[in-house]
Amino acid sequence: MNDDGAMLTNVRIVLVETSHPGNIGAAARAMKTMGLRSLWLVRPAQFPHADATARASGADDVLAEARVCASLAEALVECRLVAGASARQRRLAWPEAAPREAAPRLLDEAGAGPVALVFGRESSGLTNDELAHCHLLVHIPADPDYSSLNLAAAVQVLSYELALAARPGTHSAAGPGVDQPVPADAEQMARFYAHLERVLIELEFLDPKHPKHLMRRLKRLFNRARPDETEMNVLRGILTAVQRHRS
Amino acid sequence: MNDDGAMLTNVRIVLVETSHPGNIGAAARAMKTMGLRSLWLVRPAQFPHADATARASGADDVLAEARVCASLAEALVECRLVAGASARQRRLAWPEAAPREAAPRLLDEAGAGPVALVFGRESSGLTNDELAHCHLLVHIPADPDYSSLNLAAAVQVLSYELALAARPGTHSAAGPGVDQPVPADAEQMARFYAHLERVLIELEFLDPKHPKHLMRRLKRLFNRARPDETEMNVLRGILTAVQRHRS
Repeated sequence: MNDDGAMLTNVRIVLVETSHPGNIGAAARAMKTMGLRSLWLVRPAQFPHADATARASGADDVLAEARVCASLAEALVECRLVAGASARQRRLAWPEAAPREAAPRLLDEAGAGPVALVFGRESSGLTNDELAHCHLLVHIPADPDYSSLNLAAAVQVLSYELALAARPGTHSAAGPGVDQPVPADAEQMARFYAHLERVLIELEFLDPKHPKHLMRRLKRLFNRARPDETEMNVLRGILTAVQRHRS
Repeated sequence: MNDDGAMLTNVRIVLVETSHPGNIGAAARAMKTMGLRSLWLVRPAQFPHADATARASGADDVLAEARVCASLAEALVECRLVAGASARQRRLAWPEAAPREAAPRLLDEAGAGPVALVFGRESSGLTNDELAHCHLLVHIPADPDYSSLNLAAAVQVLSYELALAARPGTHSAAGPGVDQPVPADAEQMARFYAHLERVLIELEFLDPKHPKHLMRRLKRLFNRARPDETEMNVLRGILTAVQRHRS
């Protein structure tokens, strides 16, 4: 893995007093899809557990390496920056950041050593004492009428933002696939349009005296599609089949 | 709700042949936290189901309003823009976008009418025939060594991007420009493809026993062009002219 990957492995996901072991497994899976591996569990209700393993799917290695701790403080050992995931905006004067702002900040510090992203209980989040460990709160914007993200879903969203922040350019660069075929060039397109025009005149669909308006419209349409060479051959083949069936 | 909220409700989440009802419930919850409400299920293995209700938590209203369909085409009725969630990058020449690029595009079109975001089966995603309904693929960037996001987790990430894009000031709001022609909807496209297939068989260009491969290629081509209603009428007119000249 590259340096960005190394920074991701320095991001600890800390789950505090998780009630449902299935959520622990799903969180491990969410982390692994985004290149995170470091899972710390503070007093989980049940762990290990068959539900955790089932929901982890192929991320059972992350589960197997998970550290179980007796206190949040223990899970935060060596961490310099600690962010708390918060389901709701709080009235307290806590520095709060959107995921998109918090992710690069966590990663920057992860270059120097472990950082933590702490998730509270499914029902009641983090206590004020636990919040006191956090340098900032991360709030996933949600519908004010129903803001209750599932724990693993919240881990997924924040892991996704971390992974994007770790791979500059990824967000804007999914772009054309590797083996993207080459669009037909201008000459091939011109030959196709000439062929199309001939066929449309033969079909008496196009008035040979005034072909321009309709042909312009068809060119606009096919130019938008940017046919590749194979597609161009198919289209030419269809035109030839039309001509053969007329005679 | 404001206009942005209204656009979110025009985004249909379509789940194709979901195996685990729990995932349907979790997807409903993911949607609702982000202000989405329109859930369409194509041939779910089991629905309604206690696991779906349990995992939906407070989003049981979204589940209750979910539409169950016999085919993907039925779930796409009236949709103009159709995006397919794709776990992996494909070699085919399919326009592909990152979630952050696709979300504002979907929302812009949702200002004018329903759009769809289609998710395939947990194990095997979407078939090539199903992909042929899509105008673009959305690929959530993931660890290449383990890219298997849980279905509901993928719904959560994309719903999150849609909700962010819907926040005031983050997109161009007006939808397709006033004078912009309206793209043909899924039903009009389906009728055109059926007509095209008939004509190609009459021309003996298409083997009626094995029409699929070539038709898929042609659908991909015309879906890229996104013909508007006038262009669709021209194309249908050409097909009719070909048929008339054969007889």
